[in-house]
Amino acid sequence: MIDPQSHSQDPPASTRGQAGGSSGSGRGALGESDASPKRRRVDVPTVRALYVTGNDGKYQEAMKVVELLQGGGTHVHLERVNVDLPELQGRPEEVAVAKTQEAARQLESQGHDAARFVITDDSGLELSCLNGFPGIYIKPMLQSLGDAGIAELVHHYEDQRATATCMLGVLDREHPPGVSVFRGELRGTIVKEPLGSVKHGKLSWNTIFVPLGEERTFGQMPLEEHALMSHRRHAFASWLTETFPS
Amino acid sequence: MIDPQSHSQDPPASTRGQAGGSSGSGRGALGESDASPKRRRVDVPTVRALYVTGNDGKYQEAMKVVELLQGGGTHVHLERVNVDLPELQGRPEEVAVAKTQEAARQLESQGHDAARFVITDDSGLELSCLNGFPGIYIKPMLQSLGDAGIAELVHHYEDQRATATCMLGVLDREHPPGVSVFRGELRGTIVKEPLGSVKHGKLSWNTIFVPLGEERTFGQMPLEEHALMSHRRHAFASWLTETFPS
Repeated sequence: MIDPQSHSQDPPASTRGQAGGSSGSGRGALGESDASPKRRRVDVPTVRALYVTGNDGKYQEAMKVVELLQGGGTHVHLERVNVDLPELQGRPEEVAVAKTQEAARQLESQGHDAARFVITDDSGLELSCLNGFPGIYIKPMLQSLGDAGIAELVHHYEDQRATATCMLGVLDREHPPGVSVFRGELRGTIVKEPLGSVKHGKLSWNTIFVPLGEERTFGQMPLEEHALMSHRRHAFASWLTETFPS
Repeated sequence: MIDPQSHSQDPPASTRGQAGGSSGSGRGALGESDASPKRRRVDVPTVRALYVTGNDGKYQEAMKVVELLQGGGTHVHLERVNVDLPELQGRPEEVAVAKTQEAARQLESQGHDAARFVITDDSGLELSCLNGFPGIYIKPMLQSLGDAGIAELVHHYEDQRATATCMLGVLDREHPPGVSVFRGELRGTIVKEPLGSVKHGKLSWNTIFVPLGEERTFGQMPLEEHALMSHRRHAFASWLTETFPS
């Protein structure tokens, strides 16, 4: 388990396994801290990351996640940007790479070329009763059915398990330039009827997803609590531990 | 109704209504025939159309449809081409336009710039019990569930109606250059278990879809019969009547 109290430490190595593996290539750390483990430097190196999303809930959670995860070595400053990206169909990894490249291209043409990282974030919901469908197509499914309709569908089946996924596409301009993808996942179940009101955007399945070991849906927890356990946290942990190893 | 025997005439105007409306702009006819209605000229004007698909079943059906629909005025020669296109998410019309533009761009860079038309063809399956989902996302749904899994899902609901859709994106290089979209649809129901073996590609819902007024699934009919009634026929009819009015 990730210890939510460990925010002054580097993320534990075990998060990588939990995050469902990452396919990023190994990278060296940019920032090097000469602070002793007992004392945190005030002027830690800061790197900028542009986080591409039109969804404020996602951004709020991502900021909390990054805050929780980063240790004394390097401060990652996550800035929200919004560009109009085509949504692709395909394998989630391929979609993430193409989307991140396109985002970086657009941001550069707008003069946003000073940040080291450009990050896109695609979430998905894999329903076990549908053999993993809809995955990244959860948004059009929510548009057609709403959270209540998806809950109803799942409860026509005996298997009500679901896996929430987060796929980060990360363009690193430095070590070396290129896009890597980092996946995080979180297992849970779908409840029969929506509960709670904490949502990521207007269309959200937070209200029907209960993480394993929890009693409440994501819709019934403050975003701060999502940030302690979410699929998004696992994906960010995977990226940060690989990019800034302790 | 479309009279399947009318293949020596221009397509009847009534097909437009059946095709669920078209959003193409009006066009003048390119070819003009001076043949009398009683006598067909051998040297009817021919226009070339590049039909972009990796799916041979689709191409075979589209060829039959065009054969059936075109009258004596202009001969449309449908040539199959295959380019590697990104599959987009979004509204079907927008997806069709973007895909056709990208196909034309790639074909031009490969030297295929002599044909008047470039056509892309996206089909979808709208399930009434899911408020129209999955629509254009039927392919990933088939990948996860197969035809049998989709049939099972629908039979958890009382409403087993479905609408098959075909969205053509047509780039016309002449009158004037631009992409129009033409939609055809066909109503039907989903049967409880797959029947038949006539498929469009490896992943196909032909085996579970019974068109309204029919007893058999598309999987139980030869492609020639699909071509007499299908959503694809309605979309092609809509395009041809608008582009080559009688």
